[in-house]
Amino acid sequence: MSKQEHTDADGSEAAPTSEKLVELAKRRGYFFQSSGAYGGVGGFYSFGPQGAALKGNVEDAWRDRFAVAEGNMEIDAPTIMHEPVFEASGHLEGFDDMLIECPECGASTRADHLVEDNTEYEDAESLPIPEVEEIIAEYELVCPECGAGLADVAVEDFNLMFATNIGPGDAQPGYLRPETAQGIFVEFPRLKEYARNQLPFGVTQIGRAYRNEISPRRSIIRTREFTQAELEYFVDPEENEPDLESVADVEVVLYPASEQNEEDGEVLETTIGDAVSEGIIGDSWVAYFLGVAKPWYESVGVDMDRFRFRQHLSGERAHYAADCWDAEGEIDGNWIELAGFAYRGDYDLSKHAEHSGDRFTIFKQYDEPKTVERATVDPDMSYLGPEFGGDAQAVVSELETLAARDRAAFEGDTVEIELEGETHEIPVEHTGFAVEEQTEAGEHVVPHVVEPSFGVDRLVYTVLHHAYREDEVAGEERTYLELEPEVAPTFVGVFPLQGDDELLAQAEEIVADLRGSGLSVTYDDSGNIGRRYRRQDEVGTPFCVTVDFETVENEETTVTVRERDTTEQKRLSIDELAETLASIREGDLEFDEL
Amino acid sequence: MSKQEHTDADGSEAAPTSEKLVELAKRRGYFFQSSGAYGGVGGFYSFGPQGAALKGNVEDAWRDRFAVAEGNMEIDAPTIMHEPVFEASGHLEGFDDMLIECPECGASTRADHLVEDNTEYEDAESLPIPEVEEIIAEYELVCPECGAGLADVAVEDFNLMFATNIGPGDAQPGYLRPETAQGIFVEFPRLKEYARNQLPFGVTQIGRAYRNEISPRRSIIRTREFTQAELEYFVDPEENEPDLESVADVEVVLYPASEQNEEDGEVLETTIGDAVSEGIIGDSWVAYFLGVAKPWYESVGVDMDRFRFRQHLSGERAHYAADCWDAEGEIDGNWIELAGFAYRGDYDLSKHAEHSGDRFTIFKQYDEPKTVERATVDPDMSYLGPEFGGDAQAVVSELETLAARDRAAFEGDTVEIELEGETHEIPVEHTGFAVEEQTEAGEHVVPHVVEPSFGVDRLVYTVLHHAYREDEVAGEERTYLELEPEVAPTFVGVFPLQGDDELLAQAEEIVADLRGSGLSVTYDDSGNIGRRYRRQDEVGTPFCVTVDFETVENEETTVTVRERDTTEQKRLSIDELAETLASIREGDLEFDEL
Repeated sequence: MSKQEHTDADGSEAAPTSEKLVELAKRRGYFFQSSGAYGGVGGFYSFGPQGAALKGNVEDAWRDRFAVAEGNMEIDAPTIMHEPVFEASGHLEGFDDMLIECPECGASTRADHLVEDNTEYEDAESLPIPEVEEIIAEYELVCPECGAGLADVAVEDFNLMFATNIGPGDAQPGYLRPETAQGIFVEFPRLKEYARNQLPFGVTQIGRAYRNEISPRRSIIRTREFTQAELEYFVDPEENEPDLESVADVEVVLYPASEQNEEDGEVLETTIGDAVSEGIIGDSWVAYFLGVAKPWYESVGVDMDRFRFRQHLSGERAHYAADCWDAEGEIDGNWIELAGFAYRGDYDLSKHAEHSGDRFTIFKQYDEPKTVERATVDPDMSYLGPEFGGDAQAVVSELETLAARDRAAFEGDTVEIELEGETHEIPVEHTGFAVEEQTEAGEHVVPHVVEPSFGVDRLVYTVLHHAYREDEVAGEERTYLELEPEVAPTFVGVFPLQGDDELLAQAEEIVADLRGSGLSVTYDDSGNIGRRYRRQDEVGTPFCVTVDFETVENEETTVTVRERDTTEQKRLSIDELAETLASIREGDLEFDEL
Repeated sequence: MSKQEHTDADGSEAAPTSEKLVELAKRRGYFFQSSGAYGGVGGFYSFGPQGAALKGNVEDAWRDRFAVAEGNMEIDAPTIMHEPVFEASGHLEGFDDMLIECPECGASTRADHLVEDNTEYEDAESLPIPEVEEIIAEYELVCPECGAGLADVAVEDFNLMFATNIGPGDAQPGYLRPETAQGIFVEFPRLKEYARNQLPFGVTQIGRAYRNEISPRRSIIRTREFTQAELEYFVDPEENEPDLESVADVEVVLYPASEQNEEDGEVLETTIGDAVSEGIIGDSWVAYFLGVAKPWYESVGVDMDRFRFRQHLSGERAHYAADCWDAEGEIDGNWIELAGFAYRGDYDLSKHAEHSGDRFTIFKQYDEPKTVERATVDPDMSYLGPEFGGDAQAVVSELETLAARDRAAFEGDTVEIELEGETHEIPVEHTGFAVEEQTEAGEHVVPHVVEPSFGVDRLVYTVLHHAYREDEVAGEERTYLELEPEVAPTFVGVFPLQGDDELLAQAEEIVADLRGSGLSVTYDDSGNIGRRYRRQDEVGTPFCVTVDFETVENEETTVTVRERDTTEQKRLSIDELAETLASIREGDLEFDEL
């Protein structure tokens, strides 16, 4: 768990593209603040028809790459979990943001953001609370809502989990999961069975997560309810190695911690292979998943000139995480986090083992059975009973612990044990001490976890932002989204010219034909053709097919196919239409080649 | 909203098939109670790799039929909504179950279930609380946990929504939505824009919903967190008609309210067309969606001999619902609800209009503009001002209301209005009363709602239950799931015989080839072939491909293809393998025909 995963560069004014994008998103059905009829609630957004389709396509693309192609298992766990899970994971204690409440107007503000936005401090989140209070006093910071002074107001820890009660009364507290990961970790004892107790194996989940942000910001980038796509990859740290070779040549832009600490630090352009051999990326599993992620981000439409991997600074990283990198996308001059890739060691499974008492291990068979020496005791109760009475059992337990820990203690005639602060001497002959040879077939090991954790909503935002274009077509301004065909909500729009039944019938046949080929189709018969093109341009539909009088007049039935970005048009026979467009969709053919 | 949608026949002991299914589901990765390491929590289940895939396939099939094929829009809204939404929807006030808490052991029990399980009352949920308390006293019912008498214990209303707080403090209460529908209704003012203000249009959503059940029961049939697939179809009740003809011949088994009220009432076998013309199904929109749903349920694998549509009894139906039918599936002798189909009138949109003040209407253009008379006032403020002082504006408002309501009041010399309990006479000459002719282009109408609401988890359970088979193969008992290929988690398993690198390489090539054809493939190279078949039979994989020595020895490279239900095997050339299996998957070819 790391709150860092959800932070980003904040505080700048929304720049023009974001403003225009948010307006377009609302008007065309990508996303909008929920419950607008009731004034809306901060941090809750709904995806309209276009947005739900784009988000679904991004999720499917993630599933194809990170679950199916990697041979991992996908599960679907509840979003409400009960208290013991988050006691173990640490979220109940440590998953806090710094809250300052204005004594005048009652507004809640994140104290660290207040400091970052109004002083030269850049990473106030990592400072202790007293220091943040001092800075607020020193700079005489004021409430951003009403301007009242906040100099002597206490800063408090505010837990970011949404709390509820399971069943009647408050006997069973529950929380909305702040990450999908816990739904995987707690089920490890079962999931390992499905993996037939063999490491490595991976488990994915795509689903909702919830963080009760003090001040949600920037549209769907920081919301209170969002979708994550997470992979928990369980490895044997001593035996398993990733297939680094398969990603060695992937070119990446890296921003290592060392460069971030420099005054004039710069990003490095290198390859995954070189970054590992030069020790820039510390862990080879993390490197592997960076190498898988980079071309995937490119395939869904993130602009690679506005994409980098940034290493966590040591203060930013959870204490148990050996190495951690974020995928970042640039939005109006700010870098926002799109995913985190962390090597988490055995932290998660050990915590759940400790708190639940269940076994979060894999039995690892030795190549051949090993013979090991074990020191054991078999105390003589007819001696211990009379000697220690009701404490005899406690003495046995002490002797067992001592034998396992320090067999040299049994080398003399007597052995010393401590019982409730008193030292007792026991003749070794009554302890039944012995060193035995035992044959062991293997050992129980706690797997380590590598976690690529993707935010879906902020990726959707980035894909739209990087696809946003304005140009001029035939003297008129045009806005369009240059979305990748793989993720565009609609692949092709079909338009009949108005006012002719034969054209309408022909168009409906074409729609059925294209849908039959597995293409996502929108049919539109209202308004002039120019307006219909503009609508599809604005939602990012790659192709439009127009059924006009030439279609039904000529001997060969043809339609106009228009490409979104160039607005270039070509006539195609309807006999080859579905197959041609399907080939373009699959990447086997370019529109240029027609 | 209707709680009825989530009720079913309860109280019977789990019958053998369910017991065996639940065991298989856990062992093979369909579903299991969540957080088992921490003792589990009632009403929360996780879908393992097989279950998540099956559930995803069912959702995709629903999307294809109820969103794409019907031309409806799909959206994706948050699961947390703030209080005003549920004040409007009625969930805050009326979404209760009857709770009785044992004074001895503290156990919480649903009072209506207690009555139904232990008396001859069948529908205790519809009884008023005092009557339920009387029955508990009269029958001397006891706590099902500890046996303590509950005769004089009060029965209370318990709200089924999970409550939480949005942001710091408790100033903004929020709730986890008890149905996905509200996320559609509240956004109507925006969604109608996407539909270009034309009725009818439909909006779908597939997502989580939450009900804090007092006593969750029967595995994934009644849980506290579940998935719904809902369609809200908005119609103009005066103009729109469904395409009944397209479903008229669909054969259905109906259990109308009239038959349920008879001592020896029976189900009717009829068609949608006949049921509408004979008035058995009261609403044609409901009939249409029943006609769409029936073949869909069949296509995902619900046994049509264990499926029916049951009409709600008048006591069961929400007061605003004109007609309501449930789709029901039979599980071990009990009928459980799989979906509800309700004609909800203008209830939902009117309530949100009333509470939010926003416009939940569609502007309906008249064929030609209408001329109507409107009574208006234009009061003389130089008279009202001195006369009424600060109350003058209130007087204007009263006059406006009165003119619109009762123009006869203005026929005399003076008009009477009431202001804070006092009657005032105002000379009509100072009111500026006039009757004007206005031309109106159309009117604002509140659409009516038809709601097909599907439960996904209980459908997954039913599909598995109806697919559960036991037989004997070569003298050995076998368990298999006769799942439809469309929804089976895996379509084909690929097994190389062990111990030969050439076979392994060949098998991996086949896997890649089959995946390239869009088929869902499992690769398994561990254990003997018989055990691998058994594993795939138990998860319901329709086909297995075995790569054996004949594959690599013969001139033509062939593999064994085995069909799950018959266990029949055929040899196929690997050149035609992918295409053949893809054709079977599409329903264009039968295994028999090979």
